[in-house]
Amino acid sequence: MDSPLLHTAQSYTPSQESLPPQNVQYRLRLPSGLPAHFTPLNPLTFVLRAALIHPNKLALAHPDVQHPRFYTFAVWCQRIQNLAYALIKYGIQPGDRVAIISPNCPLIADAHWGVLAARAVVTPINFRLTKPEVDYIIEHSGSKLVLVDHEFASLAEGITVPVVISQDTGLPDDPYEKFLAEGRHFSQERGWAGLDMDPNEDANATLCYTSGTTGRPKGVMTSLRGSYLAAIANAFEAKLSFDSVYLWVLPMFHAAGWTYPWSAVFAFSTQVTIRAVRFPDIWKHFIKSGVTHYCGAPTVQIGIVNAPEGRVLERPINAVIAGSSPTSHLIGELEKKNIHVTHVYGLTDTYGPFTRCYSRPEWREWSLEKRAEAMARQGHSFATADELRVVYSDGGDLLRDVPADGKTLGEIVVRGNILMKEYFKSPEETRAALRGGFFHTGDLAVHYPDGTVLISDRSKDLIISGGENASSLAIEQELAKFPDVLEVSVIARAHPKWGERPMAFVILQPHAEARWKGKEAEFEKELKRFAQKGLPGFARPEWVKVVKDLPKTSTGKIQKNVLRKTVAKL
Amino acid sequence: MDSPLLHTAQSYTPSQESLPPQNVQYRLRLPSGLPAHFTPLNPLTFVLRAALIHPNKLALAHPDVQHPRFYTFAVWCQRIQNLAYALIKYGIQPGDRVAIISPNCPLIADAHWGVLAARAVVTPINFRLTKPEVDYIIEHSGSKLVLVDHEFASLAEGITVPVVISQDTGLPDDPYEKFLAEGRHFSQERGWAGLDMDPNEDANATLCYTSGTTGRPKGVMTSLRGSYLAAIANAFEAKLSFDSVYLWVLPMFHAAGWTYPWSAVFAFSTQVTIRAVRFPDIWKHFIKSGVTHYCGAPTVQIGIVNAPEGRVLERPINAVIAGSSPTSHLIGELEKKNIHVTHVYGLTDTYGPFTRCYSRPEWREWSLEKRAEAMARQGHSFATADELRVVYSDGGDLLRDVPADGKTLGEIVVRGNILMKEYFKSPEETRAALRGGFFHTGDLAVHYPDGTVLISDRSKDLIISGGENASSLAIEQELAKFPDVLEVSVIARAHPKWGERPMAFVILQPHAEARWKGKEAEFEKELKRFAQKGLPGFARPEWVKVVKDLPKTSTGKIQKNVLRKTVAKL
Repeated sequence: MDSPLLHTAQSYTPSQESLPPQNVQYRLRLPSGLPAHFTPLNPLTFVLRAALIHPNKLALAHPDVQHPRFYTFAVWCQRIQNLAYALIKYGIQPGDRVAIISPNCPLIADAHWGVLAARAVVTPINFRLTKPEVDYIIEHSGSKLVLVDHEFASLAEGITVPVVISQDTGLPDDPYEKFLAEGRHFSQERGWAGLDMDPNEDANATLCYTSGTTGRPKGVMTSLRGSYLAAIANAFEAKLSFDSVYLWVLPMFHAAGWTYPWSAVFAFSTQVTIRAVRFPDIWKHFIKSGVTHYCGAPTVQIGIVNAPEGRVLERPINAVIAGSSPTSHLIGELEKKNIHVTHVYGLTDTYGPFTRCYSRPEWREWSLEKRAEAMARQGHSFATADELRVVYSDGGDLLRDVPADGKTLGEIVVRGNILMKEYFKSPEETRAALRGGFFHTGDLAVHYPDGTVLISDRSKDLIISGGENASSLAIEQELAKFPDVLEVSVIARAHPKWGERPMAFVILQPHAEARWKGKEAEFEKELKRFAQKGLPGFARPEWVKVVKDLPKTSTGKIQKNVLRKTVAKL
Repeated sequence: MDSPLLHTAQSYTPSQESLPPQNVQYRLRLPSGLPAHFTPLNPLTFVLRAALIHPNKLALAHPDVQHPRFYTFAVWCQRIQNLAYALIKYGIQPGDRVAIISPNCPLIADAHWGVLAARAVVTPINFRLTKPEVDYIIEHSGSKLVLVDHEFASLAEGITVPVVISQDTGLPDDPYEKFLAEGRHFSQERGWAGLDMDPNEDANATLCYTSGTTGRPKGVMTSLRGSYLAAIANAFEAKLSFDSVYLWVLPMFHAAGWTYPWSAVFAFSTQVTIRAVRFPDIWKHFIKSGVTHYCGAPTVQIGIVNAPEGRVLERPINAVIAGSSPTSHLIGELEKKNIHVTHVYGLTDTYGPFTRCYSRPEWREWSLEKRAEAMARQGHSFATADELRVVYSDGGDLLRDVPADGKTLGEIVVRGNILMKEYFKSPEETRAALRGGFFHTGDLAVHYPDGTVLISDRSKDLIISGGENASSLAIEQELAKFPDVLEVSVIARAHPKWGERPMAFVILQPHAEARWKGKEAEFEKELKRFAQKGLPGFARPEWVKVVKDLPKTSTGKIQKNVLRKTVAKL
């Protein structure tokens, strides 16, 4: 690979203190009593192996900052070890949650390993949430320590547990670097053998909060075993290898980066972190840094193809897209630039990607239109996932498959090793989601005879705005707090830039009707201003419509499908 | 892929009866009480997934027989199901052993799946063993049924358990096909849902007998979990994919084909079986069938490069070599033909391949000599294996690592998920092999700082000459550089002064045979003179014997114990 990024990396000499000792051994302390033929599955083993086999290979690059960093596997692995010891020094016990509020940068990349190495639970928090939401998650997760990037330090203000702030400089006086140095000192160079291998592969690994469909965010708890198996599947599906360079476009806090923090290391690939999704930067790396892979929602892909910096790439790039299906137009535009799309389907609850539609040799001769249509299908489970089913959504425990006729609508349900363990501290919601022994995705689909499915309606309450899941219910709850609102219903409406944006239908309080009569535009402005306080940017309504009535079922449930049809006609 | 093999396959229409029903569901019956996020690891899931996703892809071709067969994944998967039901009909219970005596052909390929689907243990027997040895294995394993190919039917004579003979025709009147048909009838089209998923991933999967070093063969018992994880590692290491065609050169009975029966299906690759290692056939498939991968011992590779049918291949082939390290000469000759070598190390006790030496980018610029030397190294564990260690072989339970100085000789020990469970019914030998919680391979090696090891010898193959340890492997490597040497094996022979001295058995290159005919003494002198340059005094051969053949095991390993016996009689 002859990219300037890697040349820069080669001229980057790690400091003596950042290196592992000469006689480093990449072995954790074995729990006693394990049979010789059993090792608990744990993604942590990937980085130990990478550091042993390719110590001098570039593992992690963070180039676009004032103090760029380039860590080899050996140096990175030592940093990870330091982080683990630092956490232990600060009292972190096995099973404790450690929160991370950070853009893509070494802090959060380190945390995906170091927190596991301390046998704690990686708890990344979406930095686009509001302060009260972040407070709720830290409180609900019971996080014992927070690692926070300086840009989002205000989100960690007033928190009672220890907070470590990273200035993202990598310099010795950076508080985060000091924290790592403390860890190394505390380790007394006991090395990896001073850290315990978790004897239980079902132990908690990550806790990612998802807005879900109902009010409060839910904490998706995953296991070490699931993380290990999902990461291997992602490496295999994306064909990651020693020669791959993975660019972090997807926020790493999203479902633990779809397990790619571990997949990339499993395959000895190089990772490149950038703090923000800026299209000129992305194109710079596409062109100059030998990028071979990235993941992102369709809305990000739209930005990428439309950026003026775009051009036809010499080397092909593999883009993994999740979320709503990319249009044939988008797929075609990406292909023109030598970017090739793999469309996957999954949820935070399934470690990210769970299924795809495998291309068949005959596709190569198909028109773009036809390929795009085929690509929109889903349902072929990843190698380490179980087969998915489409069942009648009658809410019962007895799951009956809909016929694979391409017509009958049912709900997608899944189970198996790459399904989350539970919603943390939410036994009721867990039970409901897992009724009949399968996880109910809330996504409706038809099943075809070839095992593929076509998702007709992504869970009807969810709005995917700029790649973020916004719960319409949560938005409704917030807007309903506005004194003049009697009733409100929020749906997703297509948006050229963000994919979808929330649209709110509002019935006014009787006492307020007179006041706003003929001044709907002013009301809209007022309500939007109100929303700024309680809702993150992506969840604020883009459009507000005052109505007399809302369409309802006989039992009083608002028929959002009717609202959607109205909007479609606008 | 535009190979004649695949064209032939496309003109091969499966019979109506061999097809699965229209509404086939590729799901086993779930055990009750499993958490939704847990599915026991089992390679069987690979073939169910392949049949769902690529039903019409060529899965298994058996072309070089009177009645060639070409099975798609859908048809093959149905045959596997039929086999499982047939076994159950014949009283096979979970955990029972089912023996297979067969060359590479559909019978043994089916058995690697159908026996697992009946929750029984795949017990392949080396067909080159003597009748008493086969009797011993059937007796010791307690096999409840034997599947045998007609060519080796005599090995199953007089056996008291049911024996099913395959004529390898695939025709309805073939006893094996009748057996499958019985199975399907017995299933009453209950399909996969009529078969139970094994609730325990630690359940027994395969039982392969290894000649070991002492007396009776030992039964290496593996688990479903280990088979699953080893198969994934092999698929990843060999870069198997949808476009791969794997040629069965390695006998499938050997360590369950190094898990490649499952690896190939995991990756949706096509497998091609040939009944015998005939070099003209192998080259025919290399040239005409789109072969991309095969595995084999160095001695098989020597036959391949020297076959007159050989030529420079248009498409590269990836050859996985285990056993002794290939010489630089052999690697070079293979590369000239566009065959690229991956050298791996493992044992039957480790599901076949366990480690390799990962190539580094700088190798690309190295000379062949230097690359061959690097390639001879081992010690980089496969992704799902644990790190190996090199320890002082003092026989104790407390394992102490030798320093990674490239000098101190120790024994390779391993543990982890791709290590066997036990020697079946041999608790004493199991305990001895697993002392200190690690499996003792009996292979001696030095450890390097970069984590690689260089295997100097099996402990029993070491030559102690005048108190010096001479590695027979190193001597062989050196002597093989002599231009007229085709193949060479070195053993220890008693010597009145030095205790032991090396003795070399040499097969001449065909082109050199005439030159040395009747002048063996001169050749010996020449070779000894050559050895003076590259070997220390104590490692130079004292005796050289030109031979036509070397005694080999069925897997192509030279039987040094036979050579030793010859020598003892001299």
